[in-house]
Amino acid sequence: MTTAAPILLTPGPLTTSARTRQAMMVDWGSWDDRFNQLTASVCEQLLAILNGTDSHHCVPLQGSGTFAVEAAIGTLVPRDGKVLVLINGAYGKRLAKICEVIGREFSTFETAEDEPTTAADVDRLLHADHAITHVALIHCETSTGILNPLQEIAQVVKRHGKRLIIDAMSSFGALPIDAREVPFDALIAASGKCLEGVPGMGFVFAEKHALAAAQGNCHSLAMDLFDQHSYMAKTGQWRFTPPTHVVAALHEALLQYHEEGGLPARHQRYANNCQALLHGMAELGLRSFLPAAIQAPIIVTFHAPKDPRYPFKEFYERVKAKGFILYPGKLTQVETFRVGCIGHVNAADMRAAVAAIAQALQEMGRSELAREGR
Amino acid sequence: MTTAAPILLTPGPLTTSARTRQAMMVDWGSWDDRFNQLTASVCEQLLAILNGTDSHHCVPLQGSGTFAVEAAIGTLVPRDGKVLVLINGAYGKRLAKICEVIGREFSTFETAEDEPTTAADVDRLLHADHAITHVALIHCETSTGILNPLQEIAQVVKRHGKRLIIDAMSSFGALPIDAREVPFDALIAASGKCLEGVPGMGFVFAEKHALAAAQGNCHSLAMDLFDQHSYMAKTGQWRFTPPTHVVAALHEALLQYHEEGGLPARHQRYANNCQALLHGMAELGLRSFLPAAIQAPIIVTFHAPKDPRYPFKEFYERVKAKGFILYPGKLTQVETFRVGCIGHVNAADMRAAVAAIAQALQEMGRSELAREGR
Repeated sequence: MTTAAPILLTPGPLTTSARTRQAMMVDWGSWDDRFNQLTASVCEQLLAILNGTDSHHCVPLQGSGTFAVEAAIGTLVPRDGKVLVLINGAYGKRLAKICEVIGREFSTFETAEDEPTTAADVDRLLHADHAITHVALIHCETSTGILNPLQEIAQVVKRHGKRLIIDAMSSFGALPIDAREVPFDALIAASGKCLEGVPGMGFVFAEKHALAAAQGNCHSLAMDLFDQHSYMAKTGQWRFTPPTHVVAALHEALLQYHEEGGLPARHQRYANNCQALLHGMAELGLRSFLPAAIQAPIIVTFHAPKDPRYPFKEFYERVKAKGFILYPGKLTQVETFRVGCIGHVNAADMRAAVAAIAQALQEMGRSELAREGR
Repeated sequence: MTTAAPILLTPGPLTTSARTRQAMMVDWGSWDDRFNQLTASVCEQLLAILNGTDSHHCVPLQGSGTFAVEAAIGTLVPRDGKVLVLINGAYGKRLAKICEVIGREFSTFETAEDEPTTAADVDRLLHADHAITHVALIHCETSTGILNPLQEIAQVVKRHGKRLIIDAMSSFGALPIDAREVPFDALIAASGKCLEGVPGMGFVFAEKHALAAAQGNCHSLAMDLFDQHSYMAKTGQWRFTPPTHVVAALHEALLQYHEEGGLPARHQRYANNCQALLHGMAELGLRSFLPAAIQAPIIVTFHAPKDPRYPFKEFYERVKAKGFILYPGKLTQVETFRVGCIGHVNAADMRAAVAAIAQALQEMGRSELAREGR
């Protein structure tokens, strides 16, 4: 069953190792010391990845990554704060929507989906509006795979004396972020992305002083990261029932992460995956949406073959029948599809995926048409 | 590893079957049709358990049960509504806290932890305060194991033209609730309780008209059940990344639920577990906190041996070493501990647990002391 399952080339949930899944074969008591140790070990390992042990707390949260993003905004932005949301894709828009729904004042700055926000943009915007207290940035915007210049933006935000909140959902663990060099109040990621765990929990790295000052901010009981952290610091336990099996899987995934060689090795493997993918797809005549300079090795958006006879659904099902699950596009202006480079896969898997894509297009009688799409 | 793990006698997370855990050995694409079918099947099966297919929608939600409770209050109680919260334990108090944090007006009615709320109480309270729009009730209060008279209270609430919200976290699937006979706007439960799935998602049965009228109520983006349901109805997909492995485990657990004989069989097995436990513990001289008439067959609270030499921690560790994980008490006035009757366990397991408890007390030189505690 395990081996027969298709390989997920999606940006999370993604393909996990059998060893990670095997860690879910045990039931854990959520009150038991052994489980508390598991949680503590997960948090320690996560903090170590970004050198944040001294400066930040790791606060795990039940639910998907979006729950953790909402929790970070709700907990760390005071009720009278104002958030500048930097947008170049669906996840930036979602972050603005969170501010709207939970009642935090905000403004947005939107660039095209293939155009990174620049530090100069942020500098100008912060000069123009002194009411802004927090800047929110999507590190790698999964709707295209675009990488925003985190380091430069973080420095500008700091120079203005403002706070930075980073949605690093699809970059954390694979792209280097050093808390000693990149100042931030919150960085948010989740179990089922580049750490190659299963989905079901997020986590927020919260700057210690910012979190200590955040009591009573939150609009929600379940999402209050101040309470979540206080309770865990006092008891070692999660405040409400933890997703025990998801935590156990993440713990096992982190052990493998370190065995593989940590962030540099993970980054390299994903970069190799991305290169193999881009190279193979170029040979098929399928163009990537982003220029290489701003393409993160996380997920690649490809233009769909420019042909009225190309139905994505058929293409998807044919590729799936050959063992690979692709991801639909998320752009409104251009017809695209996406292929993830992350998960427990390597360059050989990517080449096999490209071969499956080639075969699917050929079956559909469109291999030349793909080429014409250039 | 699986068989060596201790049996959890806790109210969720609890002991699951190997078959349920095995369902987590596959990675699912959250956008894929096959996964959408899995979600749809889970919701259909859940609705069928309470005969709610015609009257209610099943809205699954990422996170623990408390997330689903907060989502139900936030989505279904309008911002100008008022909730009467019926309290006889920690979960009732938590529900009131949710109202407070998310800014819904509320009043509370509290009885002792061994005293069920009555329909007459609710009748009187609704007569006295016409501003109340919703009544919130904990069906089985896990802090003691007490059962509140849902059916009678539901009729009174209906007679007053008010709406009922039921936290049925630890009763759903084991104690009969029929949506055709018990009128309610929302009933909330979770994956890792009497259905014997793993923790990581909750679900809310929302009355169709109430949910349709709930757009814009919610204080949270991630917890908005109106949005969650609308998106799922339109696309078949979860709005944000689902806990795919948890959903797959719940699906497999539901298949086993039906194979076992559905609710009557599940109820009977838990009742047998509870009887075996009560009988065995009485023989050891350990008294249960609640009288039998209001004791649900879900979790039993026992008085701790009345002896200064009894340290719960040592007792817990000794029982755990023999293969059983107990649960600490949650009462402030009386020293207690709790033993769950739910999960993939039977009466023989309960007798083995009692034997382990007896042995642990004997090792601690306190078997007679337990008897004196009567």
